Amino acid sequence: MRREGIALVLSAPSGAGKTTLIKRLLAEFPHFGYSVSCTTRRPRQGEVHGKDYFFLSREEFERCRAEQSFAEWAEVHGNFYGTPLAPVKEMLRQGQDVLFDIDVQGAAQLKLTLEEAAFAFILPPSMAELERRLRGRGLDDEETIQRRLNNARREMLETRWYDALVVNDDLDAAYDALRAVYLAATLAPGRNPRLVEELLAR
Amino acid sequence: MRREGIALVLSAPSGAGKTTLIKRLLAEFPHFGYSVSCTTRRPRQGEVHGKDYFFLSREEFERCRAEQSFAEWAEVHGNFYGTPLAPVKEMLRQGQDVLFDIDVQGAAQLKLTLEEAAFAFILPPSMAELERRLRGRGLDDEETIQRRLNNARREMLETRWYDALVVNDDLDAAYDALRAVYLAATLAPGRNPRLVEELLAR
Repeated sequence: MRREGIALVLSAPSGAGKTTLIKRLLAEFPHFGYSVSCTTRRPRQGEVHGKDYFFLSREEFERCRAEQSFAEWAEVHGNFYGTPLAPVKEMLRQGQDVLFDIDVQGAAQLKLTLEEAAFAFILPPSMAELERRLRGRGLDDEETIQRRLNNARREMLETRWYDALVVNDDLDAAYDALRAVYLAATLAPGRNPRLVEELLAR
Repeated sequence: MRREGIALVLSAPSGAGKTTLIKRLLAEFPHFGYSVSCTTRRPRQGEVHGKDYFFLSREEFERCRAEQSFAEWAEVHGNFYGTPLAPVKEMLRQGQDVLFDIDVQGAAQLKLTLEEAAFAFILPPSMAELERRLRGRGLDDEETIQRRLNNARREMLETRWYDALVVNDDLDAAYDALRAVYLAATLAPGRNPRLVEELLAR
């Protein structure tokens, strides 16, 4: 009675608490796989090709992109990053769930290339609280904080197509909501194509 | 930040454990409303018009049906039963969640009249276990048990359009899945149309 894998796609503005929520999710459901991304940036000390990233030349990356081999791709600070589609599809086919931690632009591409994925966006309870959290971390200068707040506003206005909006006000409630999105996704008939047939035979 | 109500529609074969699961759901989420159905059967001792049912004449029922006033309707043993659509839509608009405990035929009609509803079908872990449970209840004669098993098989083969299939093998796991379907439904952007706007203003 093996089901197909779930591609669970999570996005959130910086400071919304996504990292904490993902840690809890992986603590309860440690079986999630990750996809290894391709990048044209140089390997950093200790990074392993095929484990941390597939390190490609610009020409190799552009050939993959032309062949539509990426589930999503982006250019960041002059370097390309991309998620190869075939390994993700193969993991899902084998029943392996895959977690994506990705911004709205990347998620929007995944919506077009992985139709069966489940998309959740984690929201701060208010802009004032988001600002308070960003300042409380003490990681960013004023300009960075303002940029993060602007990005948050822009991203939050592009979330209508997500499957779920999770407000992270109370962490326990937000986690309960996030795990519900994941569990509900596992129950879809399309992801359990032989379930009824197998139950009827037993 | 009030969201729209969820119409949560649950179906299951007799013996799958739906009643137990609904009791747990209402214990955790006691705010669910029920819709009062219309029927052409005579009131039984103590039944109150407008509370247990709206008791209609056959002519009244047929007029409502012709006006497409029912979210779903059925004829059972020569009597008509129907769910009036307008009060359900009004409850949902006011943010009141509404629970429907209904067979596959009724649920299929609700799918067409309440597009935004969430549909879950509760499955037994096997036909052998379903039969064991039906016999264990000691309520039905052999003919009734065979009829229930045949109905179960027929209904289970019509569940591809449900949002979620919940296998009731372990009761705690089945309940966790059912509440996930409900919670995930509450998070859909379409049911929280002003959420982001309100968060951005705070």
